[in-house]
Amino acid sequence: MTTWKTVPLAQASRLLNHGPTVLVTSVTGAQRNVMAAAWSMPVEFTPPRVAVVIDKTTLTRELVRTGGAFGLCIPGAALADLTYAVGSVSGRDGDKFQRFGIEAAPGPVLGVPVIEAGCCAWLECRLIPEPHTEEAYDTCFGEVVSAAADARIFAAGRWDFRTDNQSLHTLHHLGTGTFAVAGGPVQARAC
Amino acid sequence: MTTWKTVPLAQASRLLNHGPTVLVTSVTGAQRNVMAAAWSMPVEFTPPRVAVVIDKTTLTRELVRTGGAFGLCIPGAALADLTYAVGSVSGRDGDKFQRFGIEAAPGPVLGVPVIEAGCCAWLECRLIPEPHTEEAYDTCFGEVVSAAADARIFAAGRWDFRTDNQSLHTLHHLGTGTFAVAGGPVQARAC
Repeated sequence: MTTWKTVPLAQASRLLNHGPTVLVTSVTGAQRNVMAAAWSMPVEFTPPRVAVVIDKTTLTRELVRTGGAFGLCIPGAALADLTYAVGSVSGRDGDKFQRFGIEAAPGPVLGVPVIEAGCCAWLECRLIPEPHTEEAYDTCFGEVVSAAADARIFAAGRWDFRTDNQSLHTLHHLGTGTFAVAGGPVQARAC
Repeated sequence: MTTWKTVPLAQASRLLNHGPTVLVTSVTGAQRNVMAAAWSMPVEFTPPRVAVVIDKTTLTRELVRTGGAFGLCIPGAALADLTYAVGSVSGRDGDKFQRFGIEAAPGPVLGVPVIEAGCCAWLECRLIPEPHTEEAYDTCFGEVVSAAADARIFAAGRWDFRTDNQSLHTLHHLGTGTFAVAGGPVQARAC
């Protein structure tokens, strides 16, 4: 008996939803913001480029467009509650950094807020304006111009998920505030 | 003492690399193919749309363009070796389904190969031609027209990663054949 079932199209996004959840930061003049995003990915190694989906109705989208930049801060598992919280309220209702007590510093190249406490890594990205894909798919492309990571979890160019650093493991959103946590590595062998 | 270190830009993609790894399938006439891809994401809920990065030099890219469709099959942890293998050789050197003994059936709507044995889900996607982003970022957009999942791991519209279904947990590529396996869920609480 097969255990396979059709997935309603309205739920199809869940199947690919669970890349590393990121906190998208932005700034223009005195206004800054932070929101959670489940949908981001690299698109190129050299130059390092990324794509992230940012809904066109959000304050973040407005600040990314005017500021021409965004930060992607990657929260560790210990920040699950905060990650869900900043994804559930709008920066239009007040500065979320203050409201949730988030410490952030201006990134070294573009000055977008970068968050280290509780995060495992961050990337500063210069927006590559692509009006069509921004409009049609809410997909914003960016070039990574600086990045940093906590050496307890990312070292020698790769993630190192161990049992003694679980509070820094990345979060992968499954839906409605439930996250999978990146777990024990497996090493592929030649077939 | 800070444990944070700068990440060389050549390694920056690793930071966002570990969404669910997928097997991209394609077909045109009698020729079919399967490759592994680490970079994919949803971009819209309704209609369900996705983006996936497929290098322009690959046979898959050629078949996706001519066939106007692709499949995204999501391998479970037990397929780690096979996933790495189909990502390491080209379909130009022979049919990878035959070479690796992969069972596939034509998808119900578009006829792209869908793989169920060892996978936890699949999506059939109609290519949305976007010549600029395909050329500039190797990023292909698609609309999901059918999907299915193994109910032992995806039920009621969400992933259910448990200790008794670990062979079906999704794979998240960390680099050079090492994958994180989606691990125990955490539920966010209101801040």
